[in-house]
Amino acid sequence: MNGADALCDTLLANGVETCFANPGTSEMHFVAALDRKPAMRCVLGLSESVVTGMADGYARMKEMPAATLLHTGPGLANGLANLHNARRANTPVINVVGDHASYHLPFDAPLTSDIEGLARPMSHWVRRITGADDVSRAAAEAITVATTPPGKVATLILPADAAWNDAPPTIARAERLASWRLDENRLRQVATALRAPGETVLLLSNRALRADALEIASRIANATGAQLMAQQSNARAERGAGRVPIDRVPYVIDKALARFANTQRMILVGARAPVGFFAYPGKPGSMLPASCEVIEMAAPGDDLAGGLAALADLLGIGPDVAPTLAARDDGALPAGKLDPAAIARAVTVLMPDNAILCDETISSGREFFPATWGAAPHDFLQITGGAIGLGLPMATGAAIACPERKVINLQADGSGMYTLQALWTQAREQLDVVTIVFANRRYAILHGELKMVGAADPGHNARRMLDLDNPTLDWVSLAAGMGVEAARAETAEALSDLLAGAVRRSGPFLIEARIQEAVSEVPPHLPLPSQAPIF
Amino acid sequence: MNGADALCDTLLANGVETCFANPGTSEMHFVAALDRKPAMRCVLGLSESVVTGMADGYARMKEMPAATLLHTGPGLANGLANLHNARRANTPVINVVGDHASYHLPFDAPLTSDIEGLARPMSHWVRRITGADDVSRAAAEAITVATTPPGKVATLILPADAAWNDAPPTIARAERLASWRLDENRLRQVATALRAPGETVLLLSNRALRADALEIASRIANATGAQLMAQQSNARAERGAGRVPIDRVPYVIDKALARFANTQRMILVGARAPVGFFAYPGKPGSMLPASCEVIEMAAPGDDLAGGLAALADLLGIGPDVAPTLAARDDGALPAGKLDPAAIARAVTVLMPDNAILCDETISSGREFFPATWGAAPHDFLQITGGAIGLGLPMATGAAIACPERKVINLQADGSGMYTLQALWTQAREQLDVVTIVFANRRYAILHGELKMVGAADPGHNARRMLDLDNPTLDWVSLAAGMGVEAARAETAEALSDLLAGAVRRSGPFLIEARIQEAVSEVPPHLPLPSQAPIF
Repeated sequence: MNGADALCDTLLANGVETCFANPGTSEMHFVAALDRKPAMRCVLGLSESVVTGMADGYARMKEMPAATLLHTGPGLANGLANLHNARRANTPVINVVGDHASYHLPFDAPLTSDIEGLARPMSHWVRRITGADDVSRAAAEAITVATTPPGKVATLILPADAAWNDAPPTIARAERLASWRLDENRLRQVATALRAPGETVLLLSNRALRADALEIASRIANATGAQLMAQQSNARAERGAGRVPIDRVPYVIDKALARFANTQRMILVGARAPVGFFAYPGKPGSMLPASCEVIEMAAPGDDLAGGLAALADLLGIGPDVAPTLAARDDGALPAGKLDPAAIARAVTVLMPDNAILCDETISSGREFFPATWGAAPHDFLQITGGAIGLGLPMATGAAIACPERKVINLQADGSGMYTLQALWTQAREQLDVVTIVFANRRYAILHGELKMVGAADPGHNARRMLDLDNPTLDWVSLAAGMGVEAARAETAEALSDLLAGAVRRSGPFLIEARIQEAVSEVPPHLPLPSQAPIF
Repeated sequence: MNGADALCDTLLANGVETCFANPGTSEMHFVAALDRKPAMRCVLGLSESVVTGMADGYARMKEMPAATLLHTGPGLANGLANLHNARRANTPVINVVGDHASYHLPFDAPLTSDIEGLARPMSHWVRRITGADDVSRAAAEAITVATTPPGKVATLILPADAAWNDAPPTIARAERLASWRLDENRLRQVATALRAPGETVLLLSNRALRADALEIASRIANATGAQLMAQQSNARAERGAGRVPIDRVPYVIDKALARFANTQRMILVGARAPVGFFAYPGKPGSMLPASCEVIEMAAPGDDLAGGLAALADLLGIGPDVAPTLAARDDGALPAGKLDPAAIARAVTVLMPDNAILCDETISSGREFFPATWGAAPHDFLQITGGAIGLGLPMATGAAIACPERKVINLQADGSGMYTLQALWTQAREQLDVVTIVFANRRYAILHGELKMVGAADPGHNARRMLDLDNPTLDWVSLAAGMGVEAARAETAEALSDLLAGAVRRSGPFLIEARIQEAVSEVPPHLPLPSQAPIF
């Protein structure tokens, strides 16, 4: 076998069974090897931003990494923005980046570039394979790194000669590194904080947002009077009717500052203390008052459900303390004006059980999170690193990971244009994804931000950089051009009809929702259930 | 004024008058400043790969850099592949990459990344602005670097607080660095080589491919019996009827090795010695025999026309030695099967005077270069760094630089899908660009490369990574979705009719050429005119 075969076999032997790819000449031996391994599912993306975004969505749901196959430095570069999102999401990803044969690099051929330099900013780990006899060991190391909780981006550089030379037949095994052990002292510190007077916030992220962990957290909150809150951006949350409703740290800085103005203690459960997504003149970087005590109970990779359970035991919270669970919202479908609130209602009412809801709505959907608490139980995946263009590929990857589940992708139009090529992969793989494009025909978030910097009404140059309305994008044509059936809605009723139809059938479908206001004007926002302290 | 105003004013004062942009929140002060400067033309690209590709095409034709406006590390990352092409083309580009306010970086907000690390591999020069009082000086330095021949990629990192804080009103001036002085000894060495027996190749690139320099080179070749050849990839060449026809170094390695098998001396005139685009098992990296003497007469940034003129003088070549010029090919339009050769014929016959021909045909167009020698005089721009997805943005940028000239973009379908968003900018700016998509529905180059690695017929996994035919891309719908009129041709006659119509009108138009063979089977290739030595 050659090095490329050894790489495929090592991936498969360690449970990596999907390869999202856009190969080039330097990867041809790897392609030929993949062609000999029918157990590996190869999924083509028509640009590398689609490839890496699919790998992110896939692993968030599969809880095992996929491999990506990228062509030299420029191919990796195209995928970096979504690797940035994956890195921020703690998603395990194994990038295989082909490079020239090692002896060809001194010739500085046109595609030569500093692949390590490009990879490092968006990878937790980068390793260049030293030869065919190093392939299997290096790949196993990459899998070990990627799958060590909470998940990491590992980038392997595969020189063409390492792929084509003969490799020894031994296939290396990845390790599963020892899991976290509970820090009893830290738990006691947290318990003490929870018993103290004044506002304490339990800030959750990562696996603390799964249904089991959330129920324990909710029982702790109900017993102690603590507030539950999720980090602003989270890789995955289990939500919906019968699960714990939990709000996120507000994106808008003044709202976040107001929210935490009286917070005396914040306990981090797999989360990071809230900071401004951006800095603004005269406003602080941390969203917490200087007097707020911050205690990290557990890091993102720790056993968060186990930690919360131990905390509940330490606090003596018995089975009589129930969690707060969201009721099913089987309210009416929206009528009239098609705006983000109407879309939130239609999705809440029509989304089937056990769907995967992907959110790259940016400004239009800021209030979408609470508005969908009462939907059928679902997983919620969102953009984590602020690098737009994740939504369509993430939904595509999630659908490949979970072919039995419906995926609904809420997609801002400006961000969607970054990676619209993902629609072609949805059509090719006949994936069960409904995309709802929030067509507000502008980078609405930037209109808001321009106001915040004190600019007057945008003039010619600003409008030419912030508006998408000349010409208007026709998403129905764009989808059709890539083999995805699509239709346009101009009213709430039309949207509901299209969504109901799309939910009933399977396969990809796109709804262009021509929304009638540029920025969401705070759609219905369910109040958090009241929390009565028992201490 | 604030730092953002100082940046705009410095760009404008130094002749940088176009800004290709996709801004984000951290760049809002810069957007507000641009909004106050109507002299700056702001052009939005719907992804940063479009933005940087437009900047490349623009500067190749304008011979002055544009600025790009990119949003933090991920925005830069999206633009890196086309910056790689620009770097390989020696195109001057000034990237302005917004970053968080300097004091916000320690918070590691979601969009934070190592921007310097990302920028360095694809930039000749990277500099972080230290504060508002540093903005103008830093911008002038960037312009100096970018415009120093042969052109460089300069990346400026603009922290948000440097943009919003008050700046001194002094606007810095860029320098024009001293030009090259002729190396008399080197010229004498070259002259001696040209008088020696055996095959000598003059390898040209950069400004040696402009009409004036080419005529001198052709006279030298005709006087000495030397062979003229262009580097394989070149940023810009002046070609067509009445200009010197010159072939390029072959892409296919065996063809290149055969071409140079008897080459005894190679003289580099702004070019680099030919190396394999990729390495192949058992094949050499250099395309030249070990015995071939390589002499660098002049580097890419030197005065290549001046150097060639001095060489002709030194050789005593008088006005009686004429250059070899291509005759106008006013042959018949193609008939029947629509293949790459038919497209080459139609373009050769129908292209108007002084057009700009952009080439990202990849495998389909390898033989296109000689087939169009007899077209009307035109500039020829091609992909230089092998990072696919340049064609559509490059054509868009060239059209912005030269609004009075027709741009014809020959576009491979697989590469075109990388940056199809550029069509929207063509529609918005009403640019005079005709795109001809070579729709062969596969990564045809990779089918060829897979064969070269000794793989048998591609199986399931290989086909799923190399073919684009399930579903077939509908380029007419894709273009319509972005406001560009389009039509499909299935025969050579239909293509000619559509191209003739598109040439007569102005504004963007796309022709999907459903070509009937996957890979070009060597279309008509005009033989090089015979060259009689006079020494």
